Amino acid sequence: MKQIRIQLRERSYDIKIANNLLSQVGKELATYDLSPNCLLVTNPLVYKFYGKQVLDSLTEVGFNTKLALVDDGEEAKSLKWVARLYDQALDAGLDRKSPIIALGGGVVGDLAGFVAATYMRGVPFIQVPTTLLAQVDSSVGGKVAVNHPKGKNLVGAFYQPKLVLADLNTLKTLPSRELKSGLAEVIKYGVIWDKEFFTYLENHIEEALALNDKVLEVIIAKSCAIKAAIVEQDEKENNLRAILNFGHTFGHAYEALTNFNTYRHGEAVAIGMIEATKFAHTKGLTTRELLQRLERLLAKINLELKPKQTFLPEEILKVIKLDKKNKAGKIQLILPLKLGKVTNFSVVPAELVNYLQN
Amino acid sequence: MKQIRIQLRERSYDIKIANNLLSQVGKELATYDLSPNCLLVTNPLVYKFYGKQVLDSLTEVGFNTKLALVDDGEEAKSLKWVARLYDQALDAGLDRKSPIIALGGGVVGDLAGFVAATYMRGVPFIQVPTTLLAQVDSSVGGKVAVNHPKGKNLVGAFYQPKLVLADLNTLKTLPSRELKSGLAEVIKYGVIWDKEFFTYLENHIEEALALNDKVLEVIIAKSCAIKAAIVEQDEKENNLRAILNFGHTFGHAYEALTNFNTYRHGEAVAIGMIEATKFAHTKGLTTRELLQRLERLLAKINLELKPKQTFLPEEILKVIKLDKKNKAGKIQLILPLKLGKVTNFSVVPAELVNYLQN
Repeated sequence: MKQIRIQLRERSYDIKIANNLLSQVGKELATYDLSPNCLLVTNPLVYKFYGKQVLDSLTEVGFNTKLALVDDGEEAKSLKWVARLYDQALDAGLDRKSPIIALGGGVVGDLAGFVAATYMRGVPFIQVPTTLLAQVDSSVGGKVAVNHPKGKNLVGAFYQPKLVLADLNTLKTLPSRELKSGLAEVIKYGVIWDKEFFTYLENHIEEALALNDKVLEVIIAKSCAIKAAIVEQDEKENNLRAILNFGHTFGHAYEALTNFNTYRHGEAVAIGMIEATKFAHTKGLTTRELLQRLERLLAKINLELKPKQTFLPEEILKVIKLDKKNKAGKIQLILPLKLGKVTNFSVVPAELVNYLQN
Repeated sequence: MKQIRIQLRERSYDIKIANNLLSQVGKELATYDLSPNCLLVTNPLVYKFYGKQVLDSLTEVGFNTKLALVDDGEEAKSLKWVARLYDQALDAGLDRKSPIIALGGGVVGDLAGFVAATYMRGVPFIQVPTTLLAQVDSSVGGKVAVNHPKGKNLVGAFYQPKLVLADLNTLKTLPSRELKSGLAEVIKYGVIWDKEFFTYLENHIEEALALNDKVLEVIIAKSCAIKAAIVEQDEKENNLRAILNFGHTFGHAYEALTNFNTYRHGEAVAIGMIEATKFAHTKGLTTRELLQRLERLLAKINLELKPKQTFLPEEILKVIKLDKKNKAGKIQLILPLKLGKVTNFSVVPAELVNYLQN
């Protein structure tokens, strides 16, 4: 087992990464000061594979668990589902010390986390991520949110979990497309923070795809450690934390313009990273070599390097203008300088349109 | 002008108390790093008296202000209004550095504060309280929330404002009943924290009722300073902060059982303080003298000392059981020991029913 500690004073917590953690959820929680009534949030598919294991482990140590099954997919990240979960939390008699447990991918974690952050002004929140993307990204760092019809994650909070349990076994039932999507975020960590990790990925990406436990444990732990280092310095994204959005400005735009039904998040981020790197190269900020190494690594896992369809520059800009990172009308792009080093680059909308037209 | 600093590390902020602050809102905000688009949340009545002053002061320093008028009264503290304000914030083009300004009483502050806490995971929040209750209590300390059909303030967050501006002038248009309701919370601070302040109130309560500026400034500043001292030690109500709920456990029950349309909050808290003090006396925890001094002081401002109607003990208990302070089935009551000192007392439901029956 690997264990990473996120140091955030009274909000500090552990991330545990190992096989067979699902059956230990109850025992792990028993070491915290919690009330017995708890809410387990998951979706029907994840429940089918892993629900009973987790429920049994909770019952074994004395929790009364109310099960909340939410819609599969991004639709669950809505204010409608938030309201439903408040009702279920009340029905289950949850008090301020009752844990809300998210068992699933990023959607389940973001939704359950927002409910945990706001039910009774915040109750203990436990993340049990079952996708690679959630294990290396969304379950760590405390960003929780739901979508607004006008944009993704527009309603949310910074709310740290009490514990993150990443069970490697769950990756064995993960569709290959989801695994690859998660690897895009893993590669992102190499680009923004750690050249050696990028090189490690160049050498071991096939083993990761083949679900080699040892390699998966290394890359999940390393990704979490990098995210921890960044979040510890800037929990609420006042400056440094924004670098985690490398590839996300364009990526979000592609997702939004295809109504979030064409690309997996990591697929869009992969294309977004390439676009941002090309823009950085145009500006003379980075080398062609970096672009090529990134393209090669993404291609090794069969991720697309550009969008399948053509978007009008104005369409892309319209979405990007809604990005939460923007300040006073300027667009903030995270651009790579060299492997392991990115910068926050401010650009006026007209310049970006001009670039996208060429 | 009196100024109180709430020390909460990077979440520290000032409370300013003086006459004629409304026309200074813009100038005060101009000293912060904010985006020009902002949202001013208020209700029609407050807007009629003070809206233009505040709007003009914002325009003068370059803010583009979108006005959001919400329903008058507790109905505005709903998820429906939260969703509407998200829409308006988006329409106004608010970004992460755009302030949301609450101009009004506790309802407007709690609602706007929850929206500020969760829109884009939190934007700068400015409190401009226009009732005594909001100036001494709800605008300070960072509790924001809306109601759920099953209970008050069940959905919320801890989210500190960037600045609180309490303009004494606004109390001149405040209905006398609201002023008295606010004074109940002021008296609470004396009981839970500061014997000398309680004595000061015994000697100056008539001047407060007569809107003597000097006395009002003293009692608002003192109340805020006491709340600051408590919140600084326990921002998120893990222990000490619960003492602020003296009188509130029973008080909330009376409010809830009359559908929040019979008592003003402070009126219910006044009766709740008497009930809690009587219970404490029954338990041998406090003296008859304290009960009598509290009764006399509340009676001086014509606050009722017991509910107008009869509630069944089981009815009261049913509401109290939903109280957010309860843990693992036990009811937490804040009880006075002596003036300036209270304790957190755990009681099983059956004992409370037994007391209420006698």
